[in-house]
Amino acid sequence: MEPKILSAVSRSTLKRLPLYLHVLEDLHRRGVVYVSCTTIARKFDFGPILVRKDLEVTGAAGKAKIGFRVAGLIDDIKKFLGWHNVQDAFLVGAGNLGKALLGYQDFDSYGLNIVAVFDNDPRKIGTRIFNKEVLALDKLAPLVKRMHINIGIVAVSSEGAQAVVDALVAAGIRAVWNFAPAPLEIPEGVILENARLTQSLAVLTNKLKSLLAGPEKE
Amino acid sequence: MEPKILSAVSRSTLKRLPLYLHVLEDLHRRGVVYVSCTTIARKFDFGPILVRKDLEVTGAAGKAKIGFRVAGLIDDIKKFLGWHNVQDAFLVGAGNLGKALLGYQDFDSYGLNIVAVFDNDPRKIGTRIFNKEVLALDKLAPLVKRMHINIGIVAVSSEGAQAVVDALVAAGIRAVWNFAPAPLEIPEGVILENARLTQSLAVLTNKLKSLLAGPEKE
Repeated sequence: MEPKILSAVSRSTLKRLPLYLHVLEDLHRRGVVYVSCTTIARKFDFGPILVRKDLEVTGAAGKAKIGFRVAGLIDDIKKFLGWHNVQDAFLVGAGNLGKALLGYQDFDSYGLNIVAVFDNDPRKIGTRIFNKEVLALDKLAPLVKRMHINIGIVAVSSEGAQAVVDALVAAGIRAVWNFAPAPLEIPEGVILENARLTQSLAVLTNKLKSLLAGPEKE
Repeated sequence: MEPKILSAVSRSTLKRLPLYLHVLEDLHRRGVVYVSCTTIARKFDFGPILVRKDLEVTGAAGKAKIGFRVAGLIDDIKKFLGWHNVQDAFLVGAGNLGKALLGYQDFDSYGLNIVAVFDNDPRKIGTRIFNKEVLALDKLAPLVKRMHINIGIVAVSSEGAQAVVDALVAAGIRAVWNFAPAPLEIPEGVILENARLTQSLAVLTNKLKSLLAGPEKE
């Protein structure tokens, strides 16, 4: 089951905010000081009214005819997304995907800092990946408690994913970012977010199939 | 701009099909021969009617009271998604994310085979990652044509992403799977699918922030 979290902000809005952030950071780098919703909307296939409504949820305040201060808007979005204070996270799975996530330094900008990695493969335990030691899975629970870790990242195969999630939840993790393709069950009060690469790939390959088959009939 | 491809099948349906596939493959491994929409739906927070409507688009035919043959349904979904025949793809970007994608052997099961990797960093060109040589970017266009490659995967930073996409499109690529967080422009007739890790992370961190702040007010 997907978790049911009461929230006034739609998932669609949450997913558009990082897109605005990238546009804004690009403007900021180029020395632009003020920006309007119309300018932001130009990068997308939706209009300025939706941009304005999305930005309102962050509490950002624009000025009539001038627009938003770029630097302030970046701050407001980051605060709203919880990216202002970096959260420590544990990663489970030291395979290729796990290695990649450990090596992806950009997560820092998105409020995420992977502080430890766990695996149950004796050949991996004790080795180092990007200067982080791979720890045995039975170290997970005591360390979650001692280090007050809230986020667990699951980068194991589909077969092992539910057991890992259960262990994370039992250890006191509050939010799970899952990279395994299998559907997972999570208790109420814990957040489950799926980073579903295979779903994105499904859209791509199906569209490509249709495109290569020629124009679709009405 | 996101590409506008006419399609009778919704993006939501396309994104649910891989989830059904995982449930079905699990049942298949456990020797289950027939399955009903009700059984599949039990794994999700939506009902059997939606499952039935989703499965109908693949052309799969179930029998009253018996349901679908598991093996046949797996085949039908894979064919519909274009995962039955593996497509060769080029990857641009030999950084950490690129390395991870190269190492993620599971893509084979999802119809994707990364056959070559490109980068413009002279220190990377000529090195090997998972037994694939990193090629210079100027080799991209002639190889796309010679090898009839349809899919390009973009695993570069946001700053360089648009230039890479333009090069892929100019070379004749028909579908781009983008891992850069920046919004990209693509001409009509070429598919752009964004695998947006930062968007998924935004949902996670915002929900966690709300959760840690305590119960929300109505």
